Amino acid sequence: MQHEKPIVNSELSSQQVKDIGEQGLLKRLQRFCPPEIIGDDAAVLETAPGQSLVVTTDVLVDGVHFSNITTSPEDAGWRAAAANLSDLAAMGASPLGITVGLGLPGEVRVSWVERLYQGMTECLQKYNTSIVGGDIVRSPVTTLAITAFGQVNPSQIIRRSAAVVGNAIIVTGVHGASKAGLELLLHPELGQDLNDEEKTALIRAHQRPQPRLDVLPILWKILASPCPMPHAPCPLPIAGMDSSDGLADAIIQICRASGVGALLERREIPLPKTFNYWLTQEQGLEYALYGGEDFELVLCLPQELASALVQHLGEGAAIVGSITSGSTVLLHDQQKKFPDQVLSLSQGFQHFNS
Amino acid sequence: MQHEKPIVNSELSSQQVKDIGEQGLLKRLQRFCPPEIIGDDAAVLETAPGQSLVVTTDVLVDGVHFSNITTSPEDAGWRAAAANLSDLAAMGASPLGITVGLGLPGEVRVSWVERLYQGMTECLQKYNTSIVGGDIVRSPVTTLAITAFGQVNPSQIIRRSAAVVGNAIIVTGVHGASKAGLELLLHPELGQDLNDEEKTALIRAHQRPQPRLDVLPILWKILASPCPMPHAPCPLPIAGMDSSDGLADAIIQICRASGVGALLERREIPLPKTFNYWLTQEQGLEYALYGGEDFELVLCLPQELASALVQHLGEGAAIVGSITSGSTVLLHDQQKKFPDQVLSLSQGFQHFNS
Repeated sequence: MQHEKPIVNSELSSQQVKDIGEQGLLKRLQRFCPPEIIGDDAAVLETAPGQSLVVTTDVLVDGVHFSNITTSPEDAGWRAAAANLSDLAAMGASPLGITVGLGLPGEVRVSWVERLYQGMTECLQKYNTSIVGGDIVRSPVTTLAITAFGQVNPSQIIRRSAAVVGNAIIVTGVHGASKAGLELLLHPELGQDLNDEEKTALIRAHQRPQPRLDVLPILWKILASPCPMPHAPCPLPIAGMDSSDGLADAIIQICRASGVGALLERREIPLPKTFNYWLTQEQGLEYALYGGEDFELVLCLPQELASALVQHLGEGAAIVGSITSGSTVLLHDQQKKFPDQVLSLSQGFQHFNS
Repeated sequence: MQHEKPIVNSELSSQQVKDIGEQGLLKRLQRFCPPEIIGDDAAVLETAPGQSLVVTTDVLVDGVHFSNITTSPEDAGWRAAAANLSDLAAMGASPLGITVGLGLPGEVRVSWVERLYQGMTECLQKYNTSIVGGDIVRSPVTTLAITAFGQVNPSQIIRRSAAVVGNAIIVTGVHGASKAGLELLLHPELGQDLNDEEKTALIRAHQRPQPRLDVLPILWKILASPCPMPHAPCPLPIAGMDSSDGLADAIIQICRASGVGALLERREIPLPKTFNYWLTQEQGLEYALYGGEDFELVLCLPQELASALVQHLGEGAAIVGSITSGSTVLLHDQQKKFPDQVLSLSQGFQHFNS
């Protein structure tokens, strides 16, 4: 029985999953879960009366979606949790909890797994939610499958399909920072003109993205009182999604689902200020449109509500364009320095094909 | 554009995931999902008023939890869905839907994935539920992460921790059939004295296990009227779980969680009748106790309710013993042919260690 001899620190840190088995690992990870949910076949959660349940799931694979080169286990955990919370925010939902399915080679260090859970828990705690269940199995490749649950007032569900011609298109923050942070991690020789603080801010945007659940109460407040459009159904149906696969992808997906087009104003897309020091305008814009993983919300609202929301959200939030008839998503330059450009998904991230 | 030339059948059947990409595969799989849930960041589900949400998750890895040798993709799909529905049944919950996270090597055939979804859907349809969301990603190993959601009246939650001394222990059906079916698949030379129908029945128990959601309405009916125990809280708290990791595991887990022991009567454990033709008593009992994947429910109830439930459930259901004080799970032989035997988890299935 390995537990009967004293374990010294160096042994602990080199301990592998196969040394303690699934049951041993589960015991070590229980401190990351609320005590009341442990020990049954499934977790029990309460939804508030009248709320709908929202469910989203992501699978992340070592070497495909994360790697020890650019991502510490804590950051991998944070990012995985953040991506799922962002999907909830994109639907207008508040989180109820997540389940974590973990596939692990026996050679993975126990401390790596604990640090992964530490990162997930840090992100979840910030948004007042927690890990409520999971499964740990043997696998030749480290795999993380997260399912997040949330609840939403049915009249406040945000859908991709609800954009209408004339809506303003809002982004809740700057875009391109996550991609820029990744580039700085992969190529430390880049960004020589940035100081340490500026570099750290971009890298942190990549490592610790912030799902925009904070936008929701502000949005509801602006929509609620007084009913802003007396001739429209109130509350309004809101169109939107998150920009996890890039801003271009988000706008194109909304337009496709809503059967509309969009006109984006090139100079209105908010980029990190530090982009000017080391990226051309074109590079910065490419990071914003196609970099992905900024986890901001892209929302379509009547112009006056959009302006009010941008004002309340403050720095980074911006109206970047408007919904048009047709089906084309055009990138336009008011100053006519650049010709109009049609945006398409093929430049964006595609699994398998990329 | 590959879609512009006509595709002949032989090309279709040899098509690989990398040929059509994630988006192409998603389109092909949409027919397995209800149309209203497609196209947003997350799925929206309704829980009935006053019901609690129940959530469970499983990860299955190719070569660890399923293999093309013994399992067709349809059966792998069915079994994965059934295991999660069984976890819901074990909590007393009715299914609301499942999400499917899929990791796939690019070389996997599209037809394999479609057949996997076909199997999942067949199982879900039988229990009036469906796939409500998912994620498909590239992975070096085929990985299936399922999360199932259900709802339960909070007063009817079945927990492992609610067993009390004197309770009868019920199983809702025969045990060992799934393990026997697997052995027949792996070693076709076994079971020479079984006819084809008998073999098929055991193999089918392995390939198409039936989660016992059908037990729940019968259980509630027996408990409801008239309130059977005037001095006890009514409805009674019910103890139980499913026998997915073997009957021994289920009883030991219930006893641990409830701080009690159990006395099992060796001859009362229901085995498939056909075991007599090709297995010794000891082999049959080992399959029942440690084989796993029978997906029956193991419930602990006052004796008179237990008898009523067994009567209603009919063939296969049985009272196999009773809850005792202490912490030992004893296998007893009324006929005293075998000495008492203490059951422990170490003989059962353990990931990593096995």
